[in-house]
Amino acid sequence: MKFAIDILIERKEGVADPEGNTIKDALRRLGYDSVESVRTSKMFSVVVEVNSPAEAKQIAEEIAQKVLANPVIENFKIFNIEEAG
Amino acid sequence: MKFAIDILIERKEGVADPEGNTIKDALRRLGYDSVESVRTSKMFSVVVEVNSPAEAKQIAEEIAQKVLANPVIENFKIFNIEEAG
Repeated sequence: MKFAIDILIERKEGVADPEGNTIKDALRRLGYDSVESVRTSKMFSVVVEVNSPAEAKQIAEEIAQKVLANPVIENFKIFNIEEAG
Repeated sequence: MKFAIDILIERKEGVADPEGNTIKDALRRLGYDSVESVRTSKMFSVVVEVNSPAEAKQIAEEIAQKVLANPVIENFKIFNIEEAG
């Protein structure tokens, strides 16, 4: 069975986000004065061919931990495990 | 009041995702043969100081449309509008 999984990789609290800060500054210059902060993160939508949602989740966790996230500065969240196709 | 809003910017269907493909190939080389596809997208967590959730949503939509997304190749989704701090 195919399962689609979303993996969100975000910076840990306190880790600087220069891209987010640049976007915040740009938005303010454009007149969006109500914008107080912008934090960026990365989403990976992965489709895996496995036998169960539990297996899909396990692979997603491994991938997130070993490949996608830098554990020193990033956290990951796994959600939306759904049968696909 | 402060509201936190999540804005997801994703490629439209059919638009190539070279970064996702590179990650998929890397995962397969590492032995994750069950991985069929990887699509990447970008999440922006924005905090705005406004008077209502409706106003927060309106600003988020404007920002997404005019600044964050490239409407030729990208869609945006707005979700998780929550009072913050």
